[in-house]
Amino acid sequence: MSGASEKGDAFDVDVAVVGAGLAGLKCARDLATAGRSVRVFEARDRVGGRTHTRRIGRGTFDVGGQWLGPGQRRVHALVRQLGLATFPTRVEGTKILELDGRRSEYASDIPSLSPLGLAQMQLSLSLIERARASIPPEEPARARFAAALDGATLETFRRRLLLRREVRGAMDAALRVIFGAEAAELSALHFLAYLNAGGGFLSLAEARGGAQQDRFVDGAQTLCTRLAEHLDVRLSRPVRRVAQDERGVTLVADGAVVRARRAVLALPPPLAARIDFEPALSPRRAALLHRYFMGAIAKVLFLYRRPFWREAGYSGELVSSDGPLAVTYDNSSHDDAQPALVGFVGGRHARALAELDPEVARERCLSALVRGFGPAAAEVEHVEITDWSREPWSRGCPVALLGPGALTGLEGALRAPEGRLHWAGTETAVEWTGYLEGALESAERAAREILEREP
Amino acid sequence: MSGASEKGDAFDVDVAVVGAGLAGLKCARDLATAGRSVRVFEARDRVGGRTHTRRIGRGTFDVGGQWLGPGQRRVHALVRQLGLATFPTRVEGTKILELDGRRSEYASDIPSLSPLGLAQMQLSLSLIERARASIPPEEPARARFAAALDGATLETFRRRLLLRREVRGAMDAALRVIFGAEAAELSALHFLAYLNAGGGFLSLAEARGGAQQDRFVDGAQTLCTRLAEHLDVRLSRPVRRVAQDERGVTLVADGAVVRARRAVLALPPPLAARIDFEPALSPRRAALLHRYFMGAIAKVLFLYRRPFWREAGYSGELVSSDGPLAVTYDNSSHDDAQPALVGFVGGRHARALAELDPEVARERCLSALVRGFGPAAAEVEHVEITDWSREPWSRGCPVALLGPGALTGLEGALRAPEGRLHWAGTETAVEWTGYLEGALESAERAAREILEREP
Repeated sequence: MSGASEKGDAFDVDVAVVGAGLAGLKCARDLATAGRSVRVFEARDRVGGRTHTRRIGRGTFDVGGQWLGPGQRRVHALVRQLGLATFPTRVEGTKILELDGRRSEYASDIPSLSPLGLAQMQLSLSLIERARASIPPEEPARARFAAALDGATLETFRRRLLLRREVRGAMDAALRVIFGAEAAELSALHFLAYLNAGGGFLSLAEARGGAQQDRFVDGAQTLCTRLAEHLDVRLSRPVRRVAQDERGVTLVADGAVVRARRAVLALPPPLAARIDFEPALSPRRAALLHRYFMGAIAKVLFLYRRPFWREAGYSGELVSSDGPLAVTYDNSSHDDAQPALVGFVGGRHARALAELDPEVARERCLSALVRGFGPAAAEVEHVEITDWSREPWSRGCPVALLGPGALTGLEGALRAPEGRLHWAGTETAVEWTGYLEGALESAERAAREILEREP
Repeated sequence: MSGASEKGDAFDVDVAVVGAGLAGLKCARDLATAGRSVRVFEARDRVGGRTHTRRIGRGTFDVGGQWLGPGQRRVHALVRQLGLATFPTRVEGTKILELDGRRSEYASDIPSLSPLGLAQMQLSLSLIERARASIPPEEPARARFAAALDGATLETFRRRLLLRREVRGAMDAALRVIFGAEAAELSALHFLAYLNAGGGFLSLAEARGGAQQDRFVDGAQTLCTRLAEHLDVRLSRPVRRVAQDERGVTLVADGAVVRARRAVLALPPPLAARIDFEPALSPRRAALLHRYFMGAIAKVLFLYRRPFWREAGYSGELVSSDGPLAVTYDNSSHDDAQPALVGFVGGRHARALAELDPEVARERCLSALVRGFGPAAAEVEHVEITDWSREPWSRGCPVALLGPGALTGLEGALRAPEGRLHWAGTETAVEWTGYLEGALESAERAAREILEREP
């Protein structure tokens, strides 16, 4: 395998990669390390995909993905390899729970629900835990009750099992921040498979011991900017057409064409569905790519002069079913030079927020914070809303989702190569789907596929 | 309103239309009749969209939409206006029902179910009938139980209400031919709204007195080829970009650009979702367009020397849950010069069929016909399969569908104009969504919107 073919076909590179998010860049880096020539096309004018780090106020903040947690061994390995620094999310202090207009506080790990609510939440969590552990991670459609689970929405089970409104509300808040969706939009099977890929509901929902445990001192996008060093990355080059034949693949981007032996599609399924493929993708894969839809999340950063919540004994963590903020965390810069809270607006609240005038949207978010933390929250230096639904090269966040009937009806079309096309991106991961870790897993798998086929 | 602006902006035409299916052409014709200059861009090398008429064997056949029924007043008016001839679908004779491997025949309008099965089917139909009639046609999300209905799949109700396998099987067959989908894929609210738009389940399912009552002597595509006469239609011009500003709209197609005062998007939502809009569409509309997915249907035409089924007393109508054919009809040419049956493969059977070698696929369809009609069905002259999922400018048939959570979560984003963009296509119709009639309704509405705004 080299830059020019022995068969008279002129290849520009061995492998062309679509997408300079974490998956595309890690895959390109693995291939380059193995001696292959690689070119990466990126639609945006920056690398990083759903990670994006910006200097805001007196700190460095991630307006996209920002956390890493225990068990995410690939991210930790990459962090060590690149020599990046991380630090723990601040969780010390009292937490706030706001369900159906009822505000309460709790200092332990046990949420301040009524005794009946707590009992039901424990029961629900153990039911979910048992159900999710029964899903085969490689192929959820082969789960024992796959047809029944994929034939129903999560909402159907939510209504049937969660009889108390407060418990429903807590689940809604979690869904909005984890999926950017409402229970009505999700296949129950997809929900369970997603939880299972990340080690269970609490693993995804928690800071300490969970997916929100640690942050990057220099921001999560650093993973991507560092990987991109010494790689051939072409920015502002959205790929429009991918044509494969027996010998290779031709990619047509805005203002650029490349001929390669193989291609890696490392972008969210809904964006891959917008590319013209020749010949057409298999009907099953085309349908599956199209069936995915992006979650709806806006991330809201609140900058303060002082960490007023800590001074009042709060951790900064708030969970609310009442909107627009579903969850908040202390998000101060690692050196505390810029005290900050971060909030997530997801699902229907994100869609409602997107309809508002930006000034009104900021006002609504701030009111929700004042409702939770008191009037001191109003003394904000700056509010920065990042609505990922408005990013044309993401069209939503944090991850692409599936409604009912797709996982079982279109089984097997997610990650198998199709001719000379290989599929990466966190949605194609077996473990930690939707997270940085999943992006890395998918990248390593796609690189391996290519190296095995073109030794 | 004229070809050139008074404000110094140079318009090529008053209105640009995307899509030369029935909706786009009727809209263009209405606007042209009102004195507006119109240009239509079509991605395919033919007009007609989801109607397509071909000479096959000794007859003229529709490989796409082909029927019209009572109550479809716009189609009937257009047929009269264009002087087209129609003729009734042949329904005389014994019908065949094949549910879960059990074959039976019946001569009346009452299907050959067990007494318990019949009772349950009657009960289910009357429940469905009551439920669908409660859906407001203009905005299904305002139905009384909209949240509960849109929060669940049709499958959830199918499992809960249809306790007998034979009744479930009959429903599956109907869903596969009416929607090209399985119950697990559909929002219960979308299902009921769709039925209601067409006058109820039986209205959609039946030939005599229903949506399959009559056919076009020269094929349904004639509606489009005749409307396209004297219109400025540019074929093989897929529109890639639609940019609107305060004064007008610029459309960029492959090899063509046009500047117009307003534009009509007359194509299925999943195809509209592939266009780049500038500025971006509202998040709500963008999400809704993307949430739609096309049904999966292959239409199978079987040509015979003689109408052997009639000679054996059969009408040619078969309903089967056992696949691949969900429903068949007598489809002989109007003069009987070419005896023919037509079958529909839908939902999961369509997806399975698409994976097969074409020869094997034909064999499977023919076996299903032999299973129903006996060995004489094997003596076929020709089998023609048209898989609409493989048509890049349809990506499925008969219509775009919605899973749970979209109608209620994205309410109001379907047909309202967005700036200078107007939305047509059968999916945007209030009555007879998914049918020729719906396409015409949407076209007339979009034309009216424009004429009101630019008098």
